[in-house]
Amino acid sequence: MPPPDPHSLQSERRPPGRPRRAERRPPPDQALLDAADELFYRDGIPATGVDALATAAGVSKVSIYQHFGSKDALAAAYIQRRDQHFTQWFLDQVDLRHDEPRAQLLAVFDILLQFVRQPEFRGCAFINAATDTRAGPPADPVLAAVQIHKHRMRAWLAQTAAAADLANPDDLAAQLALLVDGAVVQAAIERSENPVAAARAAAAVIIASHAPTPPPAPGRADSPLPE
Amino acid sequence: MPPPDPHSLQSERRPPGRPRRAERRPPPDQALLDAADELFYRDGIPATGVDALATAAGVSKVSIYQHFGSKDALAAAYIQRRDQHFTQWFLDQVDLRHDEPRAQLLAVFDILLQFVRQPEFRGCAFINAATDTRAGPPADPVLAAVQIHKHRMRAWLAQTAAAADLANPDDLAAQLALLVDGAVVQAAIERSENPVAAARAAAAVIIASHAPTPPPAPGRADSPLPE
Repeated sequence: MPPPDPHSLQSERRPPGRPRRAERRPPPDQALLDAADELFYRDGIPATGVDALATAAGVSKVSIYQHFGSKDALAAAYIQRRDQHFTQWFLDQVDLRHDEPRAQLLAVFDILLQFVRQPEFRGCAFINAATDTRAGPPADPVLAAVQIHKHRMRAWLAQTAAAADLANPDDLAAQLALLVDGAVVQAAIERSENPVAAARAAAAVIIASHAPTPPPAPGRADSPLPE
Repeated sequence: MPPPDPHSLQSERRPPGRPRRAERRPPPDQALLDAADELFYRDGIPATGVDALATAAGVSKVSIYQHFGSKDALAAAYIQRRDQHFTQWFLDQVDLRHDEPRAQLLAVFDILLQFVRQPEFRGCAFINAATDTRAGPPADPVLAAVQIHKHRMRAWLAQTAAAADLANPDDLAAQLALLVDGAVVQAAIERSENPVAAARAAAAVIIASHAPTPPPAPGRADSPLPE
């Protein structure tokens, strides 16, 4: 990974997932993905019709079916692209902050704070998409794409916990992921960043509980600790 | 509160929020709330049209507007009723399990496990409704009703933590609520109960970290602890 460029921080503060608009109009499939990223995230997948998508993308409605086959397939492609963009943005943000793995685990909550402070913040795009498509089968590729993203983030947490020599890194990752998801959901419902601070405090306790037991101090190994 | 009836456990295993169907058809407003409770929870508020609601309730579409004014107002009434039913079900479940406040805090996760095991489980109705209506103002009464429910549950957690003599009960309640919401969201996405077990384990650590510091053992107060 190239060394982080501190000057890129500002530009990276925009919502992950939506690429900068190019000067020239992108090709229809890209224009549709850009429109989907904005409208599906902001208003929800069921609330966004193909007419609104086509209008926002500046293409014909037929283009949606030509390029993606269905609105549900476009929604799955939106989540797959957002997974790529979000993951890259997240890893860049981690690299900008810390080299040390244990500090990187807590930095997740600083990055989350930055994310929920975006004026466009409407919760976690992945959780929202899973909720949007809970009615079932026709939209199952959306849920599958959401699961892939969540597994990717949890794998990063487990790998970072292992690099920090913390005990039971998979369990720790699962617990930290709960705090991340709880915080992003509550921040959206409460319209507040307070849940992120609460999650960071809880994460610090959980991480400390996974620290390897320090060796007993010399000569004190047999002393009982005070009750 | 009346004494818990252990025989009611089985009947209370059905999804909270939906009352048992009466033998006789309920009046139109109740029939609409029953239909809303089933369809809004299962398929989502945006994906459920007024035609489907009227058909499921066995009433005319005009009834929706006569009794509630709008689909959004019906959605808010659905959340308010579910808040009442869920809260009563939850408190009954707590009473069935434990009298001791600290044990009651952990029992939350046993109740959550029972909830996510329901075949009809589609996540948290309150989080889902907030997500469903994220597009904004016309559905703000839904969000307000969701916030009231979440505040009620957090107040119960804080009050129970205080009764258990745990330190900083409000902070503890906020942290436990994150684990509850994270677990219910992940259980829906993963179609798995594993997140609830992870949340319970994390909750035990968080609760222990809020236990009041025991007084120093006599004669050891000034002894430095080993590093």
